[in-house]
Formats: sequence, structure tokens, C-alpha cells
Amino acid sequence: MTPIVSQEHREERKKIILNAAKEVFIKKGFHATTIQDIIDQSGISRGGVYTYFQNTEDVFLELLKRRDLEDVWDLDEVYEKGRRNWEALLYILDSIQDAIENERDLLVPAIYEYYFTTGRSTKKHLPFLETRISQAQESLSLIINRGVEDKEFSPVLPINDIARTIITFCDGIYLSCFHLGPVKTNIKGQFHAFHSYLALALKLNL
Amino acid sequence: MTPIVSQEHREERKKIILNAAKEVFIKKGFHATTIQDIIDQSGISRGGVYTYFQNTEDVFLELLKRRDLEDVWDLDEVYEKGRRNWEALLYILDSIQDAIENERDLLVPAIYEYYFTTGRSTKKHLPFLETRISQAQESLSLIINRGVEDKEFSPVLPINDIARTIITFCDGIYLSCFHLGPVKTNIKGQFHAFHSYLALALKLNL
Repeated sequence: MTPIVSQEHREERKKIILNAAKEVFIKKGFHATTIQDIIDQSGISRGGVYTYFQNTEDVFLELLKRRDLEDVWDLDEVYEKGRRNWEALLYILDSIQDAIENERDLLVPAIYEYYFTTGRSTKKHLPFLETRISQAQESLSLIINRGVEDKEFSPVLPINDIARTIITFCDGIYLSCFHLGPVKTNIKGQFHAFHSYLALALKLNL
Repeated sequence: MTPIVSQEHREERKKIILNAAKEVFIKKGFHATTIQDIIDQSGISRGGVYTYFQNTEDVFLELLKRRDLEDVWDLDEVYEKGRRNWEALLYILDSIQDAIENERDLLVPAIYEYYFTTGRSTKKHLPFLETRISQAQESLSLIINRGVEDKEFSPVLPINDIARTIITFCDGIYLSCFHLGPVKTNIKGQFHAFHSYLALALKLNL
């Protein structure tokens, strides 16, 4: 028996709702956004929206989940044109710096708002956050490990710890830029310093 | 002419209100706290509270301002018992690690909540945040500079940039611990790695 609404149709409707919701969250933030805003922006009926989502938090969490899937680094791209492992690391750091400096991810203010208000009590985002961090740590560790195999690096510290400090540093920069902007954060000077820390701790051997 | 209410009396009343407000903010967070809560907790009348503060944001900002004054590192303490400059740096890092690991500053959740909601629109906390960061950066740079004079350090990077990355790293750790706690953050491994980055970038010469 064919289901009345196909899986593709469901996914398509969900995407329309999510894209509309994303626009509203970017514009109004997490708390100021209501289900009515999402209905109005998406052009999908109240009943239609409630078929897929229970409330705005539910919509927001689905956005976070999909964002994490999109954000996974494509290691083919990272290693494009025969980049060495050190260049691959710098490529990742540069793209993070660019994303922060130029505010490429417009959902970030709403995400922070959510994290420190509703998310703090419901903790529903924590599984996504943990997955996000461990995926990033794994990719970074993988690059460092390849560098060791290629005799490009001789790390003086546990590889996983080095990988994790990269994430921590980027989070800290994000936070500072969020409040003070890239110039007062001295984003260029700080990223330059952090490149040196890594080069030294990896005992870069080019 | 003697003023009807002395300066000391005003300051005393303000302190009673602020201490009471701090307790409520710690318990309920920034947004859930009302002026009525502060009135109830302090035992000071509505008129009394409004003599000193216009609204809860006003009370919160005064708490932030006073917290910044208290939080300035006492360099005499930092250099206690003839500590060398490297030990002084580690002393500061250890006390930050301890404060984060053991959640010594109970106001932090309310501060984050404020930063990413009301503060984001009013921006009234930014002068305090900037002062806080520049004071910390100055103290750290001062210690590094002394280390250079004492031939303990030969930094391979601009001293101010090194100082600023220390603040950024600690902010990043704070953020991660806030969500995931100290164990999942691997706070010990990360601080240990960061100590090594500093030792390498300062070309520690003990």
C-alpha cells in the first residue's frame, strides 16, 4: 500500500518549514520567535507545522542537527591539491577564522541565546554539541596522526589534547568576536600566535 | 550642611541590595529575576531600591562592575614567596582552572544569560567587559615582560598576543565546561597542553 504522503514529500515540507524558521531565528533570535512566525514565514498551515514539530525548540534542535551534518569537514577538500598535513591544518584554521571574522554563520547569535537560556534547562542540545565536538576533534586528530606517519610532525603532547585545544581556542575567539568584534579581539594576532603554538607543539618538520 | 543620608549609609544600603540581588540572580538567572524578588530578598522597600537602581539590568551591571574590581589579580599575591615569572603565570592559570573546575563563580550562568540576551541589545556591559579583558591582558603582559627582563623568557611572538591568547583559551574552556562539565571538557589535559604552548612560545629558560 502506498502511504498517503510520501517520505520525499514529508522531507520537502520539513525543509520548507526549517528554511523559513532559520530566517526568523536569524532575524528575531530564539525566544522572540513564535510558531506563528514560522507559519507566516513558511506559508505552511498551523496543522502542517505541528505535524512535524511540537514547538519552536523542537524546530531549533532540528536546525542544529542538520547544521552539524553540513558542517563536517570534507577531508577531500581539506587535502585538495596535494596539501601537506600542516597545510591541511592551516586550511581548517583559516576557514574558521574567516567564518568568525566575516560572520558567515548568521544563526550563531540565536544558538548562543538558546544555549544559555532554554538549552541550559532542557539540555536537549547537549548530544548534538558533544557529537559536534567529537567529530571536529576526530578530524583534527586524524590530520595530526597522518602528519606523524608522514614524519611531518613529532608532537610533544597527546594528539587528542592538541586537537581539543584547537576547538577551545576557536570557541574562545568566537565568544570574544561576538561581543567585541574582530578588531578589538585582535583576531589576526591571536590566530597567528595560535599557529605558532601548534607548529611548536607538533615540532613541525617541513 | 549635613546631608540627610550620609554617603556611608547610601553605600551600605546599596551593598545590602546588591548582595540580596546576587543571591536571587544566582538562584533564578537574569531574566526570571524581578525587582520584587530583590525587594523581598533584601528587606528594603520598593522606594528604597528604586532610589539606587532603575531596573534589574541596572542592578546587574553594578554587580558586574564591582565583580571586575574584586577580580583584579593581586600581583603581590601572584609573586608571593619569591615566585619566578613562569611560576607566577602558572599560579594565575591554576587559579583560573580551579575557579572553572569547581564553579567558584556562581554568577557565571546569569552573566552568560545576560550577555547573550539583554546585553546583546543594550550593549551596556561592553565597557566593563573591555576593561576586564584589558586589565587581564595588562597583568599577563607585565609578568611576561618581567620574565624577559629577568632572562627567563625569550618570546617568539608579540607579548600582548601571547597574553591575549591566554584569556581566549580560558574563555573557551569556560564555555565548554559550562555545557559539558570538566571531565568531558578534558580540562586537565587541555590546561596541560596550554602550559606547554606557553613554555614553547616563551622559550622558557629555567
